[in-house]
Amino acid sequence: MSHHEVDAEKEMNRLLAAGGTPPVETDPFTIGDVRLSPGRIVGLLRPHMRERRLERIRDVVENRTRAVVPVVEGLVNTGNVSAVMRSAEALGHQDMHVVRGEHEQYKHSQRTAQGAQHWLDVWHWDAPQACAAHLQKAGYRVVALHLHADTVPIRALDFTEPTALVFGNEEAGVTDAMLEASDAACEVPLPGFTESFNVSVAAGVALYHAQQDRLDRQGHHADLSDQAQARLEARFCLRSVNNAERILRRKIEEG
Amino acid sequence: MSHHEVDAEKEMNRLLAAGGTPPVETDPFTIGDVRLSPGRIVGLLRPHMRERRLERIRDVVENRTRAVVPVVEGLVNTGNVSAVMRSAEALGHQDMHVVRGEHEQYKHSQRTAQGAQHWLDVWHWDAPQACAAHLQKAGYRVVALHLHADTVPIRALDFTEPTALVFGNEEAGVTDAMLEASDAACEVPLPGFTESFNVSVAAGVALYHAQQDRLDRQGHHADLSDQAQARLEARFCLRSVNNAERILRRKIEEG
Repeated sequence: MSHHEVDAEKEMNRLLAAGGTPPVETDPFTIGDVRLSPGRIVGLLRPHMRERRLERIRDVVENRTRAVVPVVEGLVNTGNVSAVMRSAEALGHQDMHVVRGEHEQYKHSQRTAQGAQHWLDVWHWDAPQACAAHLQKAGYRVVALHLHADTVPIRALDFTEPTALVFGNEEAGVTDAMLEASDAACEVPLPGFTESFNVSVAAGVALYHAQQDRLDRQGHHADLSDQAQARLEARFCLRSVNNAERILRRKIEEG
Repeated sequence: MSHHEVDAEKEMNRLLAAGGTPPVETDPFTIGDVRLSPGRIVGLLRPHMRERRLERIRDVVENRTRAVVPVVEGLVNTGNVSAVMRSAEALGHQDMHVVRGEHEQYKHSQRTAQGAQHWLDVWHWDAPQACAAHLQKAGYRVVALHLHADTVPIRALDFTEPTALVFGNEEAGVTDAMLEASDAACEVPLPGFTESFNVSVAAGVALYHAQQDRLDRQGHHADLSDQAQARLEARFCLRSVNNAERILRRKIEEG
């Protein structure tokens, strides 16, 4: 078991202890009793995929980042959560965190997300503190998109530093609990009478800004290690092939 | 009558001849039979406004631009049109064009626009060709946000040139008629599986990009002349004071 996988397991235990719900339902690399390497999975599934599909997967994986993580907190309009997922996936983010509002249970809007949820690792949280603490332990600074006395313009931030960007409720914004747990607050300065964007627009603009900032500063947005890319490629192949697990079982039994 | 006002009249006649609906219902500078200068209007209304309100109006007017013009074509979700209006107003645009879809009549979503429509000049068109021709005659290049063979990345465009940015229908994108009438097509490159943003997110991101591009290239986004600013300040004061027209009538009668 590689160092990376040990870390992932520790991470999962920490997450479960903190009351979070992990994004990955099962370990995708264990089929029955057999543990398969990511490369082996891709090799076995390759005959069942169009070459163009695999190329597309590799292209997406090469452009993936975990350095900037969108977090939505307490959104009540499911279309907005789905629109943020769509923007996040489109811009190359791999992780997204959803913190449930006090009285609301998020339900998914399939149409608005355009399938983006299938390609993201979506983490669910009951409370903002646990989410923020988890991200901070993992090395992220937590930045709320929220206007208050200490808010800085988003241009003042360096997005080559690992950053979780929190987008709050449609009416009330980010909760006090999340603001207290956050390391900073930023805003997109708006010169008009209208003092805020729609939340899905705000998230799209802020994530686009982060991407452009990273491109300007370091020439690239993507940053997964070769090993992380191989794992993600295998997971995306498992998602792309119909009955992938059954195919793998059969091939393993056949030797 | 100033040169600017003559041009505005010509513009209006051209617009009406082309089948468009102008954004401004009446000439705000004629009260009864008396023509008032913008400065006179502001002077007469000033006692009826809080000082902070007038400061806010001046601040918004100083940050206004007509150099980049958002155009939405054939949107069926009224929430999306309203969200684009909100983003456009928030980012300092003064004009917005709405081209009706073939079978749909746009209706306004008051909640989503957050009042932005009160501060924008919204132009309505029945057909894309008339809208594009109007903008091109007024000196804008018309750029569709649409993916086809000749599409360029949005980063390749110089937004210090007067540009109308066209955002198309939620499903079908920009119509063939609008694409034929356009000078270019651009896209926000997306590295994920999801091939597009939600249209209101796309508009927000593209307009934000244009603003940042203008700031990077020339140090400012706003560009109204002193005269245009004075006119807009008077119009915003008329909008801000309850019963402004009645107040002005009474003051003129009183001498």
